[in-house]
Amino acid sequence: MSAGTTVNIAITGFGGRMGRVLAEAVSFAEQEGKAKLSGAIVRPGSSLVGADAGEVAGLGRNGLAIVDSLEKAEFDVLIDFTSPQATLDNAAYCAEHGKAIVIGTTGFTAEERAQMLSAGDKTPLCFATNFSTGVNLCFNLLETAARVLGDDVDIEIVEAHHRHKVDAPSGTALSMGEVIADTLGRDLSKVAVYGREGQTGARERETIGFATVRGGDVVGEHTVSFLADGERIEITHKASSRLAFARGAVRAAIWLIGRDAGQYDMRDVLALK
Amino acid sequence: MSAGTTVNIAITGFGGRMGRVLAEAVSFAEQEGKAKLSGAIVRPGSSLVGADAGEVAGLGRNGLAIVDSLEKAEFDVLIDFTSPQATLDNAAYCAEHGKAIVIGTTGFTAEERAQMLSAGDKTPLCFATNFSTGVNLCFNLLETAARVLGDDVDIEIVEAHHRHKVDAPSGTALSMGEVIADTLGRDLSKVAVYGREGQTGARERETIGFATVRGGDVVGEHTVSFLADGERIEITHKASSRLAFARGAVRAAIWLIGRDAGQYDMRDVLALK
Amino acid sequence: MSAGTTVNIAITGFGGRMGRVLAEAVSFAEQEGKAKLSGAIVRPGSSLVGADAGEVAGLGRNGLAIVDSLEKAEFDVLIDFTSPQATLDNAAYCAEHGKAIVIGTTGFTAEERAQMLSAGDKTPLCFATNFSTGVNLCFNLLETAARVLGDDVDIEIVEAHHRHKVDAPSGTALSMGEVIADTLGRDLSKVAVYGREGQTGARERETIGFATVRGGDVVGEHTVSFLADGERIEITHKASSRLAFARGAVRAAIWLIGRDAGQYDMRDVLALK
Amino acid sequence: MSAGTTVNIAITGFGGRMGRVLAEAVSFAEQEGKAKLSGAIVRPGSSLVGADAGEVAGLGRNGLAIVDSLEKAEFDVLIDFTSPQATLDNAAYCAEHGKAIVIGTTGFTAEERAQMLSAGDKTPLCFATNFSTGVNLCFNLLETAARVLGDDVDIEIVEAHHRHKVDAPSGTALSMGEVIADTLGRDLSKVAVYGREGQTGARERETIGFATVRGGDVVGEHTVSFLADGERIEITHKASSRLAFARGAVRAAIWLIGRDAGQYDMRDVLALK
Repeated sequence: MSAGTTVNIAITGFGGRMGRVLAEAVSFAEQEGKAKLSGAIVRPGSSLVGADAGEVAGLGRNGLAIVDSLEKAEFDVLIDFTSPQATLDNAAYCAEHGKAIVIGTTGFTAEERAQMLSAGDKTPLCFATNFSTGVNLCFNLLETAARVLGDDVDIEIVEAHHRHKVDAPSGTALSMGEVIADTLGRDLSKVAVYGREGQTGARERETIGFATVRGGDVVGEHTVSFLADGERIEITHKASSRLAFARGAVRAAIWLIGRDAGQYDMRDVLALK
Repeated sequence: MSAGTTVNIAITGFGGRMGRVLAEAVSFAEQEGKAKLSGAIVRPGSSLVGADAGEVAGLGRNGLAIVDSLEKAEFDVLIDFTSPQATLDNAAYCAEHGKAIVIGTTGFTAEERAQMLSAGDKTPLCFATNFSTGVNLCFNLLETAARVLGDDVDIEIVEAHHRHKVDAPSGTALSMGEVIADTLGRDLSKVAVYGREGQTGARERETIGFATVRGGDVVGEHTVSFLADGERIEITHKASSRLAFARGAVRAAIWLIGRDAGQYDMRDVLALK
Repeated sequence: MSAGTTVNIAITGFGGRMGRVLAEAVSFAEQEGKAKLSGAIVRPGSSLVGADAGEVAGLGRNGLAIVDSLEKAEFDVLIDFTSPQATLDNAAYCAEHGKAIVIGTTGFTAEERAQMLSAGDKTPLCFATNFSTGVNLCFNLLETAARVLGDDVDIEIVEAHHRHKVDAPSGTALSMGEVIADTLGRDLSKVAVYGREGQTGARERETIGFATVRGGDVVGEHTVSFLADGERIEITHKASSRLAFARGAVRAAIWLIGRDAGQYDMRDVLALK
Repeated sequence: MSAGTTVNIAITGFGGRMGRVLAEAVSFAEQEGKAKLSGAIVRPGSSLVGADAGEVAGLGRNGLAIVDSLEKAEFDVLIDFTSPQATLDNAAYCAEHGKAIVIGTTGFTAEERAQMLSAGDKTPLCFATNFSTGVNLCFNLLETAARVLGDDVDIEIVEAHHRHKVDAPSGTALSMGEVIADTLGRDLSKVAVYGREGQTGARERETIGFATVRGGDVVGEHTVSFLADGERIEITHKASSRLAFARGAVRAAIWLIGRDAGQYDMRDVLALK
């Protein structure tokens, strides 16, 4: 893509809350002349088919009618935050038609995840459990801290989310734990501790503790503590709106244009590797 | 006791870490002319019997020889932070001989606890899971917050302690939960949640969540969060040394002198009821 | 007002950001059958005159046309978050016509403030620098903490707000300082410290320190720390949306109906006095 | 130095609080066979001259008599946390006699600092405002965060110390600000803001805010916040005892042995450059 060309972005799951926030993030990129919304897709049968995408997203009329399948949309890159099965179908479509794809869906089984990622063999694909610049920077900081502090510290991860979140710990907290475990040569599935109750005994150094807080409207907070005798370091990320995730996804979408087929993540997009 | 009289304090478990910190706290009270150390007791057979109590506590020679039983000590009030069985014996001794007693031992069964508290029928007894002024003030603040915010918030308790702590959640965290549950008419044993892993579903309003962090040399930190839509309140206590607990216990010991027999706690001592 | 009667609420400054959030808060109260929006007022000359108030607030058409003066609106109580001069006019109107008024305007001079409050001689008036339930609960908790801890602690207030805030410290932080200073018999104008740089000397016990953080989109965070040797207590309030303030203002508006003329504040409304 | 050789360490200012903590840190290194205390120096005229260094430090008798000048001590490396003038003399002595030196003294004028550092022309010298592993790791993390987030965030530094600290902001906070300003090509003396009061106007992006908290017995806490729209990152260091600083100084002392003459800092020692 030559410099200055506007990237055409399609969004699936347009009727959901994340779809609308993605639309808002695209509108910011549009103001900077970098991208525009060219496709807004909902499930077949939705009452939103034919409605104006801008109005539905609360951004003002933009003349783009909502459609019910990818075939009916024109786009360079798809942003997909839907459900595992829908994402597998959408990734297959993009692989077949040479469209780039940004995937933020969660809840894949290991098998589904492998199948989803395989679309990267044919088209540029960016997958992340968290698209915010800040969270991905944190992954990098955590790697450095774990490398320097090594086995001289106890490592604990505390995360907080709103009362509607149905799983624990968050995917982001688990990703943080994986980054640390990988750096220290530990197997997260063996060293993770997800709760403590009763006579637990003294802490074992190689464990990585996870603690969850659920309540109110907390968008998402993660703190990783490295605790030594005499000092501790804490690395914290706080999200105040979904827009941080959506803007990262749009940044990834623009970055994918012109890349070779492949499996990328946000640390590639942010040049943090 | 007339104003200005110095209270004679004995300490059991003098050889342990908490015993020495209690001795330091008594020395502060001595500087203010309020109390002095008159008995330092260790287990029979300890190599410390006969040693100078001041030197053992790192406070300089004070001429008081360490002994191996309460019978060999002169005192108005005993401060006892030992083990459940030793405390039961010591409480019985104090009840029989009309000595006041301050108890900070933890780990009682329900039955042992009832037996221990019954010494209060015959002598002034102050029992608390946490003797710091700050923690007891927090109990009061938590009661107010729970009463005002009621069922409009989600309540979560996070506590952190050093890596050597063998139980979870801390006794103080559980006491905080009890204060809140009592205020809201909930049964803590039914609403407490001690860990979250996997598909937990959305949070139920009446639950009270506990999360524990273990690591480094953290003396003790507790945060209770009241999370609503649009705002949250957090009440936090951080201890930086055991001295805060020991000074509270000495304050309780001095307060007990001249009281009627009875079961008291730190909120009585601090006039927080 | 008899139980079950719906309170008619008017909002001035309807075209501004706070006006729309207030409209949203009224809509929540309307769902509970407690109140409804009966007047939406903007400045004379605004392009919004005649537009549908519900649509302007993003709440869906509600058939109420926006007007440009209080005379053109029907209401039991006015909620006014505008500017000092506009509020003085509006308060005078309410006093004259026997309408209750809730005032959240900031930036009054001492003289303007006295004039504004005098409307309470003729009509029920509720004025507060912060209408959230949580902040007002915090005022109460701070009073208790200051009373119990007294001169044994150092007291410091840290607040954080978004980058667009033009004054420091926040009105809420100053109100917190006033509650504490009043409780301890100190004069805030003499003991407040607003910044530290260079050779400051050791801290004097009776000072109350204020520290401000400005950045990002922080809605509003306040932490008051009570620091002793060995322990500290922190009382924290975090706002995540303006809705917390708006809902408090609507709660105050409903509470005012049927009251005698007088100057009230949120601690009256929340029965925290 | 061949592997396994024990480094002989001298400590100046042995009678002060930091001197004793340094002695404790050397004793930890001695347990690991890496170093031993070979010189304990106090000012001429001190009553401690001739006393047993181990006993004075509370570590038990070690047979080393305290002396009143460097000439009377045998050592490979000196650890000096004293005062600017004493340090200048001690650095000159080490430069002349080919002894390595670790300097933790603060309060130098720019001229004194240059003179002190010039000892590094003749002998290995390690100077730092903060010797803890954690703080120096933080410098590294801050550099990364500033580089990645650049001008998209507002940067604020909050630090807290005990009530006896006489200067503000802390040297460590200023060093953190310098690392960030250097990374972003800003001049800290032009962009630093040390307090906010009254009508400050909206925040300017390139400023770096400092806020200080003073109270209680806080050993030292620093939090740097990077605040964006929608998210923020916080990097926090908390010291719980001076031992963290002393252990870092001893680590530096051992690391210096066998190095070329030169000016080093803790990031060299920790291989963080």
